[in-house]
This record gives sequence, C-alpha cells and structure tokens, in this order.
Amino acid sequence: MWIYEKKLQYPVKVSTCNPRLAKYLIEQYGGADGELAAALRYINQRYSIPDKVVGLLTDIGTEEFAHLEMIATMIYKLTKDATPDMLKAAGLEDHYVNHDNALFYQNAAGVPWTASYIQAKGDPIADLYEDIAAEEKARATYQWIINMSDDPDLNDGLRFLREREIIHSQRFREAVEILKEERDRKKIF
Amino acid sequence: MWIYEKKLQYPVKVSTCNPRLAKYLIEQYGGADGELAAALRYINQRYSIPDKVVGLLTDIGTEEFAHLEMIATMIYKLTKDATPDMLKAAGLEDHYVNHDNALFYQNAAGVPWTASYIQAKGDPIADLYEDIAAEEKARATYQWIINMSDDPDLNDGLRFLREREIIHSQRFREAVEILKEERDRKKIF
Amino acid sequence: MWIYEKKLQYPVKVSTCNPRLAKYLIEQYGGADGELAAALRYINQRYSIPDKVVGLLTDIGTEEFAHLEMIATMIYKLTKDATPDMLKAAGLEDHYVNHDNALFYQNAAGVPWTASYIQAKGDPIADLYEDIAAEEKARATYQWIINMSDDPDLNDGLRFLREREIIHSQRFREAVEILKEERDRKKIF
Amino acid sequence: MWIYEKKLQYPVKVSTCNPRLAKYLIEQYGGADGELAAALRYINQRYSIPDKVVGLLTDIGTEEFAHLEMIATMIYKLTKDATPDMLKAAGLEDHYVNHDNALFYQNAAGVPWTASYIQAKGDPIADLYEDIAAEEKARATYQWIINMSDDPDLNDGLRFLREREIIHSQRFREAVEILKEERDRKKIF
Amino acid sequence: MWIYEKKLQYPVKVSTCNPRLAKYLIEQYGGADGELAAALRYINQRYSIPDKVVGLLTDIGTEEFAHLEMIATMIYKLTKDATPDMLKAAGLEDHYVNHDNALFYQNAAGVPWTASYIQAKGDPIADLYEDIAAEEKARATYQWIINMSDDPDLNDGLRFLREREIIHSQRFREAVEILKEERDRKKIF
Amino acid sequence: MWIYEKKLQYPVKVSTCNPRLAKYLIEQYGGADGELAAALRYINQRYSIPDKVVGLLTDIGTEEFAHLEMIATMIYKLTKDATPDMLKAAGLEDHYVNHDNALFYQNAAGVPWTASYIQAKGDPIADLYEDIAAEEKARATYQWIINMSDDPDLNDGLRFLREREIIHSQRFREAVEILKEERDRKKIF
Repeated sequence: MWIYEKKLQYPVKVSTCNPRLAKYLIEQYGGADGELAAALRYINQRYSIPDKVVGLLTDIGTEEFAHLEMIATMIYKLTKDATPDMLKAAGLEDHYVNHDNALFYQNAAGVPWTASYIQAKGDPIADLYEDIAAEEKARATYQWIINMSDDPDLNDGLRFLREREIIHSQRFREAVEILKEERDRKKIF
Repeated sequence: MWIYEKKLQYPVKVSTCNPRLAKYLIEQYGGADGELAAALRYINQRYSIPDKVVGLLTDIGTEEFAHLEMIATMIYKLTKDATPDMLKAAGLEDHYVNHDNALFYQNAAGVPWTASYIQAKGDPIADLYEDIAAEEKARATYQWIINMSDDPDLNDGLRFLREREIIHSQRFREAVEILKEERDRKKIF
Repeated sequence: MWIYEKKLQYPVKVSTCNPRLAKYLIEQYGGADGELAAALRYINQRYSIPDKVVGLLTDIGTEEFAHLEMIATMIYKLTKDATPDMLKAAGLEDHYVNHDNALFYQNAAGVPWTASYIQAKGDPIADLYEDIAAEEKARATYQWIINMSDDPDLNDGLRFLREREIIHSQRFREAVEILKEERDRKKIF
Repeated sequence: MWIYEKKLQYPVKVSTCNPRLAKYLIEQYGGADGELAAALRYINQRYSIPDKVVGLLTDIGTEEFAHLEMIATMIYKLTKDATPDMLKAAGLEDHYVNHDNALFYQNAAGVPWTASYIQAKGDPIADLYEDIAAEEKARATYQWIINMSDDPDLNDGLRFLREREIIHSQRFREAVEILKEERDRKKIF
Repeated sequence: MWIYEKKLQYPVKVSTCNPRLAKYLIEQYGGADGELAAALRYINQRYSIPDKVVGLLTDIGTEEFAHLEMIATMIYKLTKDATPDMLKAAGLEDHYVNHDNALFYQNAAGVPWTASYIQAKGDPIADLYEDIAAEEKARATYQWIINMSDDPDLNDGLRFLREREIIHSQRFREAVEILKEERDRKKIF
Repeated sequence: MWIYEKKLQYPVKVSTCNPRLAKYLIEQYGGADGELAAALRYINQRYSIPDKVVGLLTDIGTEEFAHLEMIATMIYKLTKDATPDMLKAAGLEDHYVNHDNALFYQNAAGVPWTASYIQAKGDPIADLYEDIAAEEKARATYQWIINMSDDPDLNDGLRFLREREIIHSQRFREAVEILKEERDRKKIF
C-alpha cells in the first residue's frame, strides 16, 4: 500500500498564468507516454516479473506517481487564475465546456487515456523493453514541451523530470542485462 | 507524493488456484467501476474541488490504490499455479495469448480501461455525485462477484472491500451536505 | 415505440450565424454528459429497474431525446450559413474536412461518443445515483457553455435545458428515497 | 420530438429462458450494425441532407428506435428468469459481474458501442450509400443470429426485423436515384 | 505478399511549406474514411468474398496503400521545413508535443485510427455496399480538403486521388451486379 | 508503392479444421502486438527517421505485411470448413454473429485494433526502442500461441514467424547503435 506525504518530489514553480503551456503539459498527464501511463505500467508488471526486478518496478512506479502529481500541480498553477476568455485564447475552450478548470486524463488533443497505450506480456525481456521504450518516449515528450515553453521556472521542473526518465531508462537497460545474464548462466548448467 | 509500504491494507487469502474467479476479479481491477477507476478519479479531482474536500479525496484515493493492490494480489494468487490448460478451461485463453499470466487493466470481457469511464466537471456538487455513484457501482460489482464466488477466504477480502465502498459513499454524501450548507450560508449574507 | 411529432419541446432561436458557439454545443450533443448519453442511459436502464421507476425513466429518457433534437437544431442554425472560411476561423476545420456541415456525435474536442460514458449495474440504488450524477454533470456543462456564450436567444434555450436537468436530478433523488423506504419497510416484516 | 407509446412495433415472443440467445442478440442492440447504430445514424443525418430525404430519414430512424426496443424486450425475456449459474453457462459471466441482468450497449463480445461505427459526411450520395450499407449489414447480422437460434418464437420476430432492413435498403436506394436524377437535371439547365 | 517499389503511384508536389494543409490531409491518412481505412478494409475482406471478386479487392486494396504513401509524402513535404512556431500557428501544437514532426494514424482532430471504422460481414453484398460507401465517403473527404486548399500543386494530386475513388466506387457497383446476377441465375436451376 | 505478388513469404499449412486455434491467431492479426500493428508502425515512422534507417523500416514493414497475409491464410484455413456449431464450440460465436467467417482486425478477445497501440515520436532513439519492444512483444505472443497449439503443421509456420521477430529485434538494436555512434561522433567535432 501507499502512504501519502503532503509534499512534492521536486518544487514546482511557474512564472505566469499560462494556459497554453498547461495544454501542452496535459500530454504528460494523460497522454500515451505521460506519467499516468508510466506509473500504471510499472505497478502492474510487478506480479509476473522475476523477483529480482520487482523492487525496481515498485520504486520507479511509485516515483512516476510523484511525477504525475508534479505535472498536475504545474497545470493547476498555470491555469488557476485564467478566465474563460483566457482559456479560449489558449485553445482550451473544448476543455472548459467539458471540465471547467478541472484536470482530466487526456492528451493535449483531448483524447482520453486508454490502457491500450501500455502492455504487460508476462515475458520479462519483452516487458523491460516496453519499459525502456516508455522512458525514451517520455524523454522525447518532455523535450518537445520544453521546446514549446518559454517559462524558465516551469522549464526547471521539466528538465528535472526529463533527467529522471533518462535515469529510469538506464536502470531498465541494466535490468535487461541482469536477466539475460542469469538466463544464460542457467543454460550452462 | 506517495511512499510505498510493503504491506497490504487487509490480508488477502485464497483457498485454491481458481483462474475463473480471477477472471471475474479483473472487473474490479480494470473495469468501469473498478479500483483503478476509483483511485484515479479522486486523485484527479483534488485540484478543482474546494479545499474542505481535498483531504477526503486524497485519503479515499490513496486507499483505493491500496484496494487495487489487494485485487492484484488476489488475481495473482488465484492464477499463479495455473497451467495454460487451466487458463483455457477458465475462459482466460484470450488473456493468455496476449498477456500470459501478467495482469492487465481491462474488464472481465477484456476491454482495456479508458478514462472515458470517469469524469471531473470542476463543479463540486457534480463531482461529488459522480463519486457517490462510483462507490455505489463498485459496491454492486463486489456483490455480483461475491455471488459468483465459492471461495470463503477470498470472500472475506471481498466483503471487506465492499464495506469500504459503502463507507466511502457515506462520506461523499456528507461532503455534499457540507458544501451545500456552506453555499446556502453564503447566499444569506 | 416512439411516435415522431414535428415540433420542438421548446422553441430554438439563435441571434446570428456563430459556428464557434456551435462547436461548444457539440459537447452537449455527443459529449460525455450530453443529451445523447442521457437519453440512452435512461432508456436502457428500464429493463432491470423496479417497476415503480420504469415510468420515470421512460419519461425522462424520452424528454432527453427531445433535448437532443433541440441541441441539433441549435447547432444547425448556428452553422447553416457558415462558409468553410468561417468554420476554419471557429476552430471547426477538423470537423469540416471529415463531416462538412453535418452533425456528429462527438464532444467539442472531436472525440466520438462511446457507451463507456454510461453505465447500468442492475442495482437500482447504484443506477439512480448514476442518473443523479449524470444530471448534475449535464447541468454543469450547460453552465460552462452559457458562460462562453454571448447570444441572448441561444441562452434562453440553454437556460431552459439547464433547468430541466435540475428538475430531473430532483426526481431521481426522490426515486432513491422511495426505493430505500420500500427496502427498509421490507426488512421490518 | 418523440412521444412514447407503450406498445411494441411487432409482438415479441420467446419460447424459453435462453441467455445464450440473449448474448447473440446483444450484437443487434449495441453492436456495429445493430439497431442503436441505425437509429442514431439516420436521426443525425437529417440536418445536412436535402429536404426531399429528411422525412425518409425521420421515418426510418424512428422505426429503428422501435426495433431497438424490440431487441431489448427479447433480451430481457430471454434472461429474466436466468440464475447467475445459467448466465455463467451461457458465457454471460463477464456481463453479469459488470451489469448483473441489466442491458448494455455493447456487442456480443462485450465491446461498448462507439459513434466510430457510423458516419455523416454532409454529401447526400455518400450518406445514403452509408445508409444502404448499414441496412445490408444489419440484414446479414440478423441472418447470422437466426442461423444460431433454435427458438421458433424468437425467430418470428427476427425475421420480421430482417425483412424491415431489406425494405429500408430498397428505400435508401430509391432515394439515391431521386437525388442523382435531380442532380443531373440541374446540370442540364 | 507485397514487393516495395521505390516510386509513387502519381507524382506529389506541394507549392510551399504549409502545415495547416498537412493537418487537413491527416484526415485522409488516419481518419474514418482515409486511405488506411480503405486499404485495410479491402485486403481483409478477400478471405470470405467469392473468388470472382478477390482480384478486384487485392488490386484496389494494393492501390490504396499507394495512396496512403502519397498522402504521407504530401504531409511530409508540407511540414518538413516547419518550425515549432509554424506548427503552433497551424493548430498542430497538440501533434508536436506528442509526435514532433512524425506522422501518425489519426484524424485531423487527433483521434487515433480504430478498426471500428470498417467492417467485414462475410455477406458479399453487404461487404460490397460497405466498400461503395467507403469510396463515396473518401471522395467527399477529398472534396472538403480541396475546398480548404489553395495549393495548386497539391490540388493536382488530390484531384487524381479523388478521381480514383470515383472509379473504385464504380467498379464495386459492377461487382454487386455480377454477384446479384449470379445469385439469381443459381436460383433458377 | 507496393506490388502484389500472389505467393506467401513462407508456406502455410494446417493439419485440421480447428477454429479454436484460429481464435488465438486473431491476436497476431489484429491484437496489440500483432502483424498489423508491426507493419503500420514501421511504414509510418519512415518519414521522420534518419535516412540511414529508412530502408530498414521499409524492408521490415513490408515483410510484416507478408506476415499479416500468412496469419490471415492460417485463420482462413483453420476455419473455412467450420460449421456455425463448430465456431460456437470454439468460443467464436461472438465473432460469427458479427462477421460470419470473415476476418477482422481485432484481438483474441474481440477488441478492435486501434492506433493507440503504436507510437511515432519523431525522436529516432525513442522510435527504435518502440520497435525493439514491439518485436520482443510479438515474439512473446507467438510463444504463447505455440504453447496453446497442438497442430504441428501450423506450429512450423508460427516458429518461422517467431524467428523473424527475433531477427528484426536484433536489426533494430543494431540501428540504435549506429545512430548513437553517429550522434557521439557529431558531438566530437
């Protein structure tokens, strides 16, 4: 089980009310390669992966929930003072008539999150490559959003998150090697 | 952020290997009214709900993640010793060719989870009725699964979970009353 | 069965050609909490709800079809004289290349309607809370659209529809009380 | 608007409690080519089709709602006396844990209805061919269900419905000819 | 099996970098009536259609893959020199944060392609009407895009593609007549 | 463009009419990690990947279409002599009432294929890891189906396909190394 602690993994600051940036960030909230997808993917795979990797999945999965909370906080801060007219100017009018200023698990184009984005095959090597790909895709998404952003405070948080994805990708690659080595060793005896 | 603690909210026991029961439980894992839907719904609504209700949503949302973990553990225990032939006999052959014995966020019929199941309107009363309905629907789902189950150990856990939903429903109804009262008081002055 | 009568439940007027308002109204045509969702939800639940509530569901479900027709008429009137360039300026170019000026059951962001938005659990209390939540969410959606609209003629129609949702919500709440009372009475004897 | 009249378009009889047949019929309730798809498709196309065809679409669309009600009644009659064990034996256990004995807009495999099944292009010829195809596909579906059914009472109703689809297909083909003729006549002058 | 030949069915030219036009063309890449839908629909129906029509489906299906490649090339050429700012101005910012300048099988509003758009009933007449409707709908879509486009080079390619759809529609109508005639002849003996 | 050649990449044989095996194979036809997903993923990524990798994607993408055709042929051969009763006994009754014996792009549980299964990020490393993961997941799926199959002729074909996925995975891993090396070399100068 999880215990909630009322703090963020890394401080979230935004320079100004900027609903357009919020719109882009929704991609990392409920998009194909966003933090929700990441957290749910890893937490779910723990039951069929070799024991050796369960702790890694729990750690990274739990951290991704913390990232999800950071993204939620960013979106909230970027929009909390926005009037309906400002949301309209930011291309968020579709969002407004459906959700007002509430958050929702969808991508930047408004497509609701679906479990079809993620996978669990029961084969440890396949599942870990799924995870590496997920981290690389999340890294790319952060890059595209940073390219679009001109908010230095926000970018500081986004860069932190992008770096975490790179580290996770590296750790999943190490896990592949550990499992492959073990598999090969078993074949010898 | 959340901290993982390696224990279940309530002990999970199953009497025998029983993949057919596992198939039913998948409904509460990744179905329309399952624990994933519940946890994600409440955690997401926290950013636009009045401060007074944020703590309630955090508490119940966090608890639903603990329920999700209990359901995952139940499914795992009911299937971990099942051969492909046993999965086939249990109507889980579709699951097997796609996921082996891994879990997946889908309903009992194999339809992947979608955020279309849940909602956040930004209107506190609407969101809380959404939550009450969610708890009532989860309660009903637990009842239908208990009706199908003949595993006394499993049923003990399912009854615990069903009772929690009833309590959550009650707490959301109280929250509606608190907010309505406050709204009415504001109108007077 | 239903008989078609060639009139609207309430007169629909619009002040000017305004495809941007039409775009918002699509949310109530084919969105998660729109009139299609409402009508189909109630008509469908009639077969497993106690006899006492069947008439209520038929009445409200049939009325929601009338609302759906009103929304369709509003969208039609707001767009019928719009040129492709006006649709483009209103953010309806995606709609135009797929549907020209035809209507379609999708939300304001262009996501097609799905039955995943609605539910029927077979449990009368759960189903009625689903219905109350639906009405509260529809009420909120009408409010967000009215906030975005500056067409007084259209707003007259939208306010009528919003009021109807409030009345429906009240009637569903009464139905919950009737069923609970009956359930409690049965327990006594 | 529509007025509800408490009678069926054609009497629905079933010989015995037979949830397996009910499962097949769900295909015509909420499947890709079922009655819901038909009714919603025609009612929606009325706003952009030439005036000459509006009445035809209203008539057939309204009749399809009557068919939807007939299918609902068939499913209800085939399942109302079924125990959970009988639903299980009929392959409806997935349905039961989610919906008890309530109906739902999904196909026989349990996939929820989506507006992606239907289309409205604003081009009258394209829309009418969409409608002809819809009727031919519904006719085929009725045939496949009749092939699976050994209930003579049910089959009487299914044959009635199949015949209606054939007549609708014919009427849509006539509408194509009328519009083409008119279009050609216009080109002459 | 298919052999790739490194040339396009018809030369693709575009006058200028124009990401807005690219956005419209995505409708024909991954939309409901686009080239992907067409190609996959025909290739799939070959296994249950009478032998007489298999060759026609293979020919047209293979040609639709060539059209898909033409559309991909058009989109690529219209966007390859676009900066993130130009994509933003063209309403492609949602696309950019998810896919950078990569293509994706979605419609102009960003909804991912789904097989729910197409059908195969096993009934040859129903399947061929599905195909005729598909061609008529694709023709209409090309028309709506041409109406939106002011790029004469692009329009040359689009007109070629529109004409091909008209010819395919004609050929599918001939196939219906051939099969009907054969069916009637069989009934005589 | 592609040219159709009327032969299979590898001969397809099946020992007996066996619709249950056909049901499993549908997973590789229209499932998340099936041949359709593979072919479409690679063909689509060609427009934003570095030139060096375009040929590889074209080659493997084209080969995956050949695999798709082999799977289609297997399903066809396993079911072509099946009666409705045999389809029913094989758990294909849901398929039958919707599609008769036609094929359809869905997974073994009947969920239609969606482009949400695949991705294209525009970042070459991310896209290639997506491709490696895809091949590893397809390999696993073939293994699960082989585990379920007792048809030696079919298994010969399935083993061929599984081996091809392993080779493709290897080639995508080599492509990652080539691109990384090039990237590092560029950084030096």
